[in-house]
Amino acid sequence: MPSDPSPILETFENPNPERDYTIRMEIPEFTCLCPKTGQPDFATLKLDYIPDRYCIELKSLKLYVGSYRDVGGFHEAVTNQILGDLAAVAEPRYMRLTAHFNVRGGIWTTVEAEHHGQ
Amino acid sequence: MPSDPSPILETFENPNPERDYTIRMEIPEFTCLCPKTGQPDFATLKLDYIPDRYCIELKSLKLYVGSYRDVGGFHEAVTNQILGDLAAVAEPRYMRLTAHFNVRGGIWTTVEAEHHGQ
Amino acid sequence: MPSDPSPILETFENPNPERDYTIRMEIPEFTCLCPKTGQPDFATLKLDYIPDRYCIELKSLKLYVGSYRDVGGFHEAVTNQILGDLAAVAEPRYMRLTAHFNVRGGIWTTVEAEHHGQ
Amino acid sequence: MPSDPSPILETFENPNPERDYTIRMEIPEFTCLCPKTGQPDFATLKLDYIPDRYCIELKSLKLYVGSYRDVGGFHEAVTNQILGDLAAVAEPRYMRLTAHFNVRGGIWTTVEAEHHGQ
Amino acid sequence: MPSDPSPILETFENPNPERDYTIRMEIPEFTCLCPKTGQPDFATLKLDYIPDRYCIELKSLKLYVGSYRDVGGFHEAVTNQILGDLAAVAEPRYMRLTAHFNVRGGIWTTVEAEHHGQ
Amino acid sequence: MPSDPSPILETFENPNPERDYTIRMEIPEFTCLCPKTGQPDFATLKLDYIPDRYCIELKSLKLYVGSYRDVGGFHEAVTNQILGDLAAVAEPRYMRLTAHFNVRGGIWTTVEAEHHGQ
Amino acid sequence: MPSDPSPILETFENPNPERDYTIRMEIPEFTCLCPKTGQPDFATLKLDYIPDRYCIELKSLKLYVGSYRDVGGFHEAVTNQILGDLAAVAEPRYMRLTAHFNVRGGIWTTVEAEHHGQ
Amino acid sequence: MPSDPSPILETFENPNPERDYTIRMEIPEFTCLCPKTGQPDFATLKLDYIPDRYCIELKSLKLYVGSYRDVGGFHEAVTNQILGDLAAVAEPRYMRLTAHFNVRGGIWTTVEAEHHGQ
Amino acid sequence: MPSDPSPILETFENPNPERDYTIRMEIPEFTCLCPKTGQPDFATLKLDYIPDRYCIELKSLKLYVGSYRDVGGFHEAVTNQILGDLAAVAEPRYMRLTAHFNVRGGIWTTVEAEHHGQ
Amino acid sequence: MPSDPSPILETFENPNPERDYTIRMEIPEFTCLCPKTGQPDFATLKLDYIPDRYCIELKSLKLYVGSYRDVGGFHEAVTNQILGDLAAVAEPRYMRLTAHFNVRGGIWTTVEAEHHGQ
Repeated sequence: MPSDPSPILETFENPNPERDYTIRMEIPEFTCLCPKTGQPDFATLKLDYIPDRYCIELKSLKLYVGSYRDVGGFHEAVTNQILGDLAAVAEPRYMRLTAHFNVRGGIWTTVEAEHHGQ
Repeated sequence: MPSDPSPILETFENPNPERDYTIRMEIPEFTCLCPKTGQPDFATLKLDYIPDRYCIELKSLKLYVGSYRDVGGFHEAVTNQILGDLAAVAEPRYMRLTAHFNVRGGIWTTVEAEHHGQ
Repeated sequence: MPSDPSPILETFENPNPERDYTIRMEIPEFTCLCPKTGQPDFATLKLDYIPDRYCIELKSLKLYVGSYRDVGGFHEAVTNQILGDLAAVAEPRYMRLTAHFNVRGGIWTTVEAEHHGQ
Repeated sequence: MPSDPSPILETFENPNPERDYTIRMEIPEFTCLCPKTGQPDFATLKLDYIPDRYCIELKSLKLYVGSYRDVGGFHEAVTNQILGDLAAVAEPRYMRLTAHFNVRGGIWTTVEAEHHGQ
Repeated sequence: MPSDPSPILETFENPNPERDYTIRMEIPEFTCLCPKTGQPDFATLKLDYIPDRYCIELKSLKLYVGSYRDVGGFHEAVTNQILGDLAAVAEPRYMRLTAHFNVRGGIWTTVEAEHHGQ
Repeated sequence: MPSDPSPILETFENPNPERDYTIRMEIPEFTCLCPKTGQPDFATLKLDYIPDRYCIELKSLKLYVGSYRDVGGFHEAVTNQILGDLAAVAEPRYMRLTAHFNVRGGIWTTVEAEHHGQ
Repeated sequence: MPSDPSPILETFENPNPERDYTIRMEIPEFTCLCPKTGQPDFATLKLDYIPDRYCIELKSLKLYVGSYRDVGGFHEAVTNQILGDLAAVAEPRYMRLTAHFNVRGGIWTTVEAEHHGQ
Repeated sequence: MPSDPSPILETFENPNPERDYTIRMEIPEFTCLCPKTGQPDFATLKLDYIPDRYCIELKSLKLYVGSYRDVGGFHEAVTNQILGDLAAVAEPRYMRLTAHFNVRGGIWTTVEAEHHGQ
Repeated sequence: MPSDPSPILETFENPNPERDYTIRMEIPEFTCLCPKTGQPDFATLKLDYIPDRYCIELKSLKLYVGSYRDVGGFHEAVTNQILGDLAAVAEPRYMRLTAHFNVRGGIWTTVEAEHHGQ
Repeated sequence: MPSDPSPILETFENPNPERDYTIRMEIPEFTCLCPKTGQPDFATLKLDYIPDRYCIELKSLKLYVGSYRDVGGFHEAVTNQILGDLAAVAEPRYMRLTAHFNVRGGIWTTVEAEHHGQ
């Protein structure tokens, strides 16, 4: 797992914090490595969140997602790690991440997790 | 952001203010500029509202939407700005704006916000 | 707006007023004029109602709908006017009109309004 | 309207009256005449009912539906008449008839009515 | 109607009676005879049930369904008879049978019935 | 039935037990043998679960699923056995298994069962 | 068969005989009678033709098609008769008629015939 | 195989033998028996032909198709037999029969054969 | 590869060798083993052939296909082997086999080969 | 570009070189780097070939494709390089590679190239 994602992930001030609104992002180009074999894994990520004080800056998100390219991790750990990192920098009111992994060993896996802000 | 949209946006009197009814508009031809790179962004806007005393005049809405062509702004800021401008001139009972932005950096973004009148 | 639609619209006695039942009509051939440019607008109307003492006669409805051909009116005004006229002659228990207007200036507009009888 | 449908419609004893169950029929081949012009009208009928003591015999239903071939009637009257006749001979616990009429004068009409047994 | 289906239908002990679970079967190859004309009727059967102590053995179900090949019966009677026979041998916690019969006389018929265990 | 699946199935520690999240797996390559004829059966398995302390390791799941290749079992028994084995090693908060078996004797069978953790 | 269709069918002069162009008509409301049982048959007619000196007048075509309402005829004879009548009055360069009859006795029949002008 | 289908199959004189035209029939309700197991087989037949002097009468075709209900035959033999019988009585200019059999032993079979008249 | 498939594959005499006709079979339940890892592979086979003197008997084909269950072989070798065996016993005028293998290592493989009789 | 792909790519002897047959592979998990920005590119590769003396071994192909993960190259260069490498080791009678690259800068690019053996 990336030990410190914050240097990559950037935010900007939510331009309308007085309002609950939803940001949805679909990221079909996620790839990381299998922790057992070192072979590449591929997934499509879907992120939904209601920002509080910060929004996630798009280009830094792209770089953050790209930073997993040489990182090994179980599907479940990677999904929760990304959700945790994004929630840590954006401190959203609500956030959900769904990761649809490509078939491995004849098995298709999807992991879906939510974060609820205070 | 356009500093003063009101000169562009026009309204006309709601012909039936005694009744709650819904106006839905789909605007597939929105373009603005990326605030970081200056490159063009494209989006489809979907607007729903229940008018109170005013309806938004269609041609002025087209011109207003077109006025973003050379304007730079984050997806979140642009969406909230448009919602805010439209709500300011029409003072609707309810309004929702959904902006589906085209892929950038391999990421598809949608921003959705609501305004509730008094 | 047509100043007096009643001479065109005809009704006949509801053959089964003892029962609540629903009549749905889809009218894909509505056209009127843009009040600003004089150019033709096109819409599909969808009408649902529960008749009380009267049903709307089909041919007179066709003639009434056709009478808007040379009439100018904003989308919102035209939709509410038609709903008002139909409700005035049929005095239904419930009526809803949805008007899907064709794209103008790159914008697709739908107006939907309801009437509730006493 | 057919003055006396009962001679055509036949029923047989519900083989399982101790149980509430549903019979659904779709009849795409209904035709009658327009009462104003004498021209043919066409419709698809959809019938749902929960039988009580009687079920409607299929061939007699076909002949009954066919008996409207030379009968004139408004859409609303025909639909209610058929529902009334079927409910009169079958005395069902519940019955609903939906008639989707083909386009006339550029207008598509659907009439839907229900009968509730005692 | 088959006078005694039990010799054909076989069951086996539900391997997990401690748990409510659902078995769904789709049987597109049902055929019987019209009781009035002797001509063949065809239907697709859909069976859902929650087993209690017994499950229906697949091959015996196929033979039981095939045993209607030379049997005459109204749609309603056949459907209820099959539901009754299956419920009698399997004594399920819940069972539903839906029979979609092919068109006859221009009319498509579906019969749907449920059984609730004690 | 495999007498002892645990030696095959492996788990790893849930990296985020503090959070309820969902893992969904689709396994289209399941095959076992018919207990009556010895002929092969084929199914698509769908597994959903909320992990507690353990996640099921993907490769061991593939091997476990593959271990049924030469095992005979009724559809109902196989489905419940797999659910039971997976629940026994992973002790999830919730788990559901749906097995869609290929057609046999003209009949399509689906078995669906759930496990609820303490 | 109607003994003399010409009094019903009317034509008008092809406004552009110097050009080969195609006219296509779809007529979903055709009904006639079965010559064996007297029961109604239903079909959708599709007509394609390249006019020479005459075009078929629309309302007269509707009346002509409607004139089969009480006429008995085999599917093949009716289709060829209609093609023959239409070709006789319009003398087209090319004409094709396809009649899709509704299911009878579990069999769906389509008849397709062509006429080639001199 | 039925030893003598001709007594069932009837023809009528082609009303328009001067013209090549096509008759297409879809027959989704074919069933016969497996010659090895005696179990029922099901198929959808598709017949296309250009008649010469005779057309196949619809009701006799339905009875002929139904006469296979208790007949055993390999898919290939049944398909060729039906094509042969139909060609023998109708003596068409061209005929094609396609039989889509339902799955047996996990295998879906289609047999397609043509007849060319002299 | 199975060293001698002929004992499993059976044929019967083509009932209509005087005619070229086509037999198409779809076999979605093929499984064999990977020659490198011993892990199962899955494929859907599509077979088309024009028989000469022999047809392939369906049940023996099912058993033959099933005989690969414990056999290891590269996709290319297995496909050619099956085509070769089927062509050897049936001696068809033409035969084509297409094998669609399930994804392995993120790669979907299809092998298609033809046999032309003398 | 990888300077020497041969050590990764492996082949095995074509089991049926006496026959022209086709192998098709779809590889949706290709990723490399943009030579200008160093950012990841993604593509789906489609490979068709007719083997001569050698077939490409699946696992080595997967590793070869994966070896581009850290390689920078223009879309056109990468596609031709892969085709060249595969053709060099397999010496096929015919080979075609189509690379569908994901959108970049709002532009979707596909590169398709062929190799013809001697």
